[in-house]
Amino acid sequence: MIEKDLPCGGWHGILEFPLPGRQQKPRDQGLTMVIDKGLGLAQLHDLLKVAAPYIDFLKLGFGTSLFYPAELLREKIRLVRSFGIDIFPGGTFLEVACWQGKLELYLQTAKELGYTFIEVSDGTIPLSQEMRTYAIRRARELGLGVLSEVGKKDPRDSLENTVILAQIRRDLEDGAYKVIVEGRESGQGVVIFDSRGALKEEELEFLAGRIERLEDIIWEAPQKHQQQELILRFGPNVNLGNVQPQDVLALEALRVGLRGDTLRATLKSAIS
Amino acid sequence: MIEKDLPCGGWHGILEFPLPGRQQKPRDQGLTMVIDKGLGLAQLHDLLKVAAPYIDFLKLGFGTSLFYPAELLREKIRLVRSFGIDIFPGGTFLEVACWQGKLELYLQTAKELGYTFIEVSDGTIPLSQEMRTYAIRRARELGLGVLSEVGKKDPRDSLENTVILAQIRRDLEDGAYKVIVEGRESGQGVVIFDSRGALKEEELEFLAGRIERLEDIIWEAPQKHQQQELILRFGPNVNLGNVQPQDVLALEALRVGLRGDTLRATLKSAIS
Amino acid sequence: MIEKDLPCGGWHGILEFPLPGRQQKPRDQGLTMVIDKGLGLAQLHDLLKVAAPYIDFLKLGFGTSLFYPAELLREKIRLVRSFGIDIFPGGTFLEVACWQGKLELYLQTAKELGYTFIEVSDGTIPLSQEMRTYAIRRARELGLGVLSEVGKKDPRDSLENTVILAQIRRDLEDGAYKVIVEGRESGQGVVIFDSRGALKEEELEFLAGRIERLEDIIWEAPQKHQQQELILRFGPNVNLGNVQPQDVLALEALRVGLRGDTLRATLKSAIS
Repeated sequence: MIEKDLPCGGWHGILEFPLPGRQQKPRDQGLTMVIDKGLGLAQLHDLLKVAAPYIDFLKLGFGTSLFYPAELLREKIRLVRSFGIDIFPGGTFLEVACWQGKLELYLQTAKELGYTFIEVSDGTIPLSQEMRTYAIRRARELGLGVLSEVGKKDPRDSLENTVILAQIRRDLEDGAYKVIVEGRESGQGVVIFDSRGALKEEELEFLAGRIERLEDIIWEAPQKHQQQELILRFGPNVNLGNVQPQDVLALEALRVGLRGDTLRATLKSAIS
Repeated sequence: MIEKDLPCGGWHGILEFPLPGRQQKPRDQGLTMVIDKGLGLAQLHDLLKVAAPYIDFLKLGFGTSLFYPAELLREKIRLVRSFGIDIFPGGTFLEVACWQGKLELYLQTAKELGYTFIEVSDGTIPLSQEMRTYAIRRARELGLGVLSEVGKKDPRDSLENTVILAQIRRDLEDGAYKVIVEGRESGQGVVIFDSRGALKEEELEFLAGRIERLEDIIWEAPQKHQQQELILRFGPNVNLGNVQPQDVLALEALRVGLRGDTLRATLKSAIS
Repeated sequence: MIEKDLPCGGWHGILEFPLPGRQQKPRDQGLTMVIDKGLGLAQLHDLLKVAAPYIDFLKLGFGTSLFYPAELLREKIRLVRSFGIDIFPGGTFLEVACWQGKLELYLQTAKELGYTFIEVSDGTIPLSQEMRTYAIRRARELGLGVLSEVGKKDPRDSLENTVILAQIRRDLEDGAYKVIVEGRESGQGVVIFDSRGALKEEELEFLAGRIERLEDIIWEAPQKHQQQELILRFGPNVNLGNVQPQDVLALEALRVGLRGDTLRATLKSAIS
């Protein structure tokens, strides 16, 4: 039977989820991180009223949080937090701030604006290990949670798997809550995805096989078939990021086996 | 001259639709079925105020209707109905309910929640003919309309055209109002679409050529070029499904020849 | 330092834009034209509250402006104008009106409804030079601004570069404010884009190299990589059109170097 503290739309007692074991909030795994490229208040309110139980993090993508009227940004942050969801600005913004020697001001302003987390990344601008460690620790001191991110946005900058793995471990030691594996908004040509968005088996096996706790990783997976494959491989409680706002319920349906793609695999394994 | 009971945006008398004959609501053909993956009330209200005259059915896709807060789901259903539009939950949800022996409870709850139609499908979970017939008839007894659906979601399960055709005829006999030809949300690799979304001539010819009344079929066609080709082939009053909410007006423009793609073909045939 | 009259989300003084020189409104270049396929009032209001400083034109695409309830269309137009943004109906609508001998009625109705601009195009329906010139001049007489458009929507109708260039010059002489280079909603198979959406170097070089003032052209470029390449080639103040409403802030981030794609190129050129 589906958990009785779920919204359920009035369908209480109708069915069991075909793919069982989905964890409810608050939770430490099965996280869904949504990318927001500029939702207004009405759209954001709609999203939260419909889907807040299924969202753990909202990211204001790239440097977009710099373009809002100040009052509107504060209101967005307040609204998201009021639904028990963490919120953070995209990592590119921090990269530029570091590069321009404004990290401290960046962190303090993020805190003051009401953000609960920040993202520490070097997807585009190189960051020394010392600076990266400092950024993570300093954010924590200021009371901000940290999601770090590994992987380069441009294929020409791509890193060895061993380097990525070492960085994940180091970030967790330094105080990151989770480490995001870069997937971009497109899900193409980056870390575990090839240029057409297909999963690169070797990279995925390497990272997933060597990391101590799989729940320490958030996989950015914007495309449906990517979400589906990661759920089938790692179960309903895999952490997924860069989910589009309009896809949150559809992703939840994938997670519990209420959509054809994961339902079919569940049936086949039940029969065989 | 465009029909004077159309909204027309204040452009009354400006022009005749290049592709003539589009039927207005209430209608038995030219139906547009929209897929809703989780619209909130403000977005839904926006959609209805703008596009209600062009929408006949709203489907809450897959199992998403299970994830809403109960009050919100009821309010969505009430709102959609108040604009003269029928509403139904996606077929996958019914498939799981049948599989778990909860069909009766499913139908009664759907009715009680205010849904006006249900979808009877076997896109993922096999359903015996007896069960399928029973589901259609029982829904009708309870005062629910029925849209049935033919076609498997996964290419590995695909059916012979003759099987699909026989199922369409049988469903109509059993009391389905229309039969949906599965197109998925993607429009790829299913029944009349190949893996890249192109129309499969042979399948389409077979079904369209043998079915007694073309208006008994709703073609799921989420991509613009698919809608365009079906309109050029079958005219402005072909029934189309899995239309994205943001595409409803653009589809209506395609139907009446106010978009380049169908307008050009109309001109060419007018000239030659 | 970022300009102090920008919204800035409360991040004043945090950083300099990596790609400098972005012009603020009111401006004669760096224009962003957004395509609206049927936004309701709540969504439109959201867009304007978030992104009005980054939008110069809103186009109601194709013939969609014909499908609104009259009061709703007037309210949309009023709302857009109240945020200092120009608004116009898609060119296909005018093409059909010309073809049916209703140009004068079309222009007067557009003016009366509150549109500030019109688009004069022949993307689908041929228009004689005399008629084109007349449409531009007559619109100007009525107090409407004019954006003309060059390029055919269907690849089978495509024009020589020399013809396109001559048309651009002629339209500007006749009184067009800017000339749009057709890119369609898809950005595929039209003028400067090949069938997969990649930039056609030769066509782009030809037009950009020969036109007297690059700021006279608005490039329709709906895809992100197209926007990115045009910004890298022509700078942050290139005029771009057919931008999706949900992409406006992301485009602004591209323009100023706050997104990986343009940021990386900026860094590389700073280093080398």
